[in-house]
Amino acid sequence: MPITIRKIAKDLNLAVSTVSKALSDSYEISDETKRMVLKYAQEHQYVPSAYAGSLKNRRSKNIAVVVPEVADTFFSNAINGIDSVAQEEGYHVLVYLTHESAAREYEILHELKSGRVDGVLISVSAGVDSNSRAHSELADNVPFVFFDRVCKDVAAAKVVTDDFESSYRATLHLLDKGCKSPLYIDAGPLSITEERRQGFLKALTLRGISSQEERTLICAQDESQNIVSIRRRLVGKHKPDGVIASVEKLAMHVYEICNEEKIRIPEDVKVIAFSNLRIAGLLAPPLSCVYQPSFEMGQRAAKLLFDALAKKTNIVREHIVLPSRFEQRESSK
Amino acid sequence: MPITIRKIAKDLNLAVSTVSKALSDSYEISDETKRMVLKYAQEHQYVPSAYAGSLKNRRSKNIAVVVPEVADTFFSNAINGIDSVAQEEGYHVLVYLTHESAAREYEILHELKSGRVDGVLISVSAGVDSNSRAHSELADNVPFVFFDRVCKDVAAAKVVTDDFESSYRATLHLLDKGCKSPLYIDAGPLSITEERRQGFLKALTLRGISSQEERTLICAQDESQNIVSIRRRLVGKHKPDGVIASVEKLAMHVYEICNEEKIRIPEDVKVIAFSNLRIAGLLAPPLSCVYQPSFEMGQRAAKLLFDALAKKTNIVREHIVLPSRFEQRESSK
Repeated sequence: MPITIRKIAKDLNLAVSTVSKALSDSYEISDETKRMVLKYAQEHQYVPSAYAGSLKNRRSKNIAVVVPEVADTFFSNAINGIDSVAQEEGYHVLVYLTHESAAREYEILHELKSGRVDGVLISVSAGVDSNSRAHSELADNVPFVFFDRVCKDVAAAKVVTDDFESSYRATLHLLDKGCKSPLYIDAGPLSITEERRQGFLKALTLRGISSQEERTLICAQDESQNIVSIRRRLVGKHKPDGVIASVEKLAMHVYEICNEEKIRIPEDVKVIAFSNLRIAGLLAPPLSCVYQPSFEMGQRAAKLLFDALAKKTNIVREHIVLPSRFEQRESSK
Repeated sequence: MPITIRKIAKDLNLAVSTVSKALSDSYEISDETKRMVLKYAQEHQYVPSAYAGSLKNRRSKNIAVVVPEVADTFFSNAINGIDSVAQEEGYHVLVYLTHESAAREYEILHELKSGRVDGVLISVSAGVDSNSRAHSELADNVPFVFFDRVCKDVAAAKVVTDDFESSYRATLHLLDKGCKSPLYIDAGPLSITEERRQGFLKALTLRGISSQEERTLICAQDESQNIVSIRRRLVGKHKPDGVIASVEKLAMHVYEICNEEKIRIPEDVKVIAFSNLRIAGLLAPPLSCVYQPSFEMGQRAAKLLFDALAKKTNIVREHIVLPSRFEQRESSK
């Protein structure tokens, strides 16, 4: 006979709601009470009802989140957003890392076909086809949501941000601050960075800035190669007076190189990054950022997935666009 | 009849080794070749041998990594270290997040008992007992390695860093720089922060600094509460002239608060953090850090696990200590 929350409450002389909150680690409950409840629950091998439930309805009670990496703030925030919804639903989140390798992503999708999880949330690796058959097949078989980086031509729910518009606006900001020779550092080939590149180019066209092709630097190689390419551009003959970094990591390379080469930000080069770095304001100088609504994107994607799991609705045609937010700081002054 | 690497190589007129490297995303192979191979492999539903192998020997070919969060650089680096080993072994890594909740950790351990994974690597949440029965039971049943944050009294392999010694040395550095009134900001209750606190106190004793109990601030509450407590100390009557932050997040709070309150680092207060932040040198001012060998700790822990899986050795008594590295920067000058 498994022990219940009710029994724990009775034995410890606590309210049922107190025990329940203690087990879900609520801030309303003191540490001392939590420790007491946890210890008792552990000693009596209490099985949380989320798990008990999964035995009953034969679901795995797991969802998979497939992402390129966790070292980027966007992904760690988005995972927290997903997890906040999954917790409410009594689900576990399993994070699978592709390390930006399309081959690994296909391997992982193959494994997920076996039904190990009840649903899949995915942000695809660079190099995955926009009409990938593997993604399409999986989306046909389990509840499936793309977030942020998507396969454009695969019919599945998508939660994205306004990459084109936010890049367009950030570029206009750079030009308004007097930049004549801006550079876009691209982390492609990716749906998001392509949109951002198009937004950048549109702003240049609007302001009549030419030689557009030379104004994009593609950094899709390994890290040390990227650093070499960026350095070459920042110290070279046609050096830019403004930079838009399409992802956080590339912005950090720009800062490191400027630091080493004594290139002054914003005097010599203004910098804007697509980044969710919470401490961007603590950098020297504080970094102007296009903040994606990372946590919310994770939440919305997870909510769609659970709607599909509850068979509330067919989500395949859902295409949610959440706006990014630009925050100007010292680096683009 | 499943397609093999050999067949792909023949059909595309490439060397077998080229196809193999392309599929594992080697940097030796051009992007163009990779795309061609991937496309072909995908179209012909190539099944990687790691997966094929798992059908044969009935292992899940998954290992679980259980961590409090991924937003901290230590954990994202350690996961990458683990993944680098797992990839070589043809294994997938499933990341489970506890969000620093002991209750969730017990739930996850319970689920892992079902044999969903072949081994478990874990860094425990605050509040888990040092002799937790749940951890001990799981360690008896599957290959199991603690890394960084451990249950001291559970018999299982452990990979840690020299928390006591590195904290002792960092504190002596602060005192050598002239601090008379240092403060240790603790994220406990955790094995690592307790060791670090003891190292801090030993340095104080050596230098004859009194009122030791008042020199520790415990920040084990939620984030906004932590910020309130730290601010109160930094602007209060007995304000410290030096701070050791036991984890990265707390150091960022210190920086944010000093920024807002116009407290100058290092003139008014010197700061050292236990942190693996790669961009610590780009902060204003650059932050002195005790760097844990995070990637290596992940690697070593994973290697132990695979030794156990291969039944090469009984790892239960393994206790590996890798040294941390102190890097002095502006913030403690």
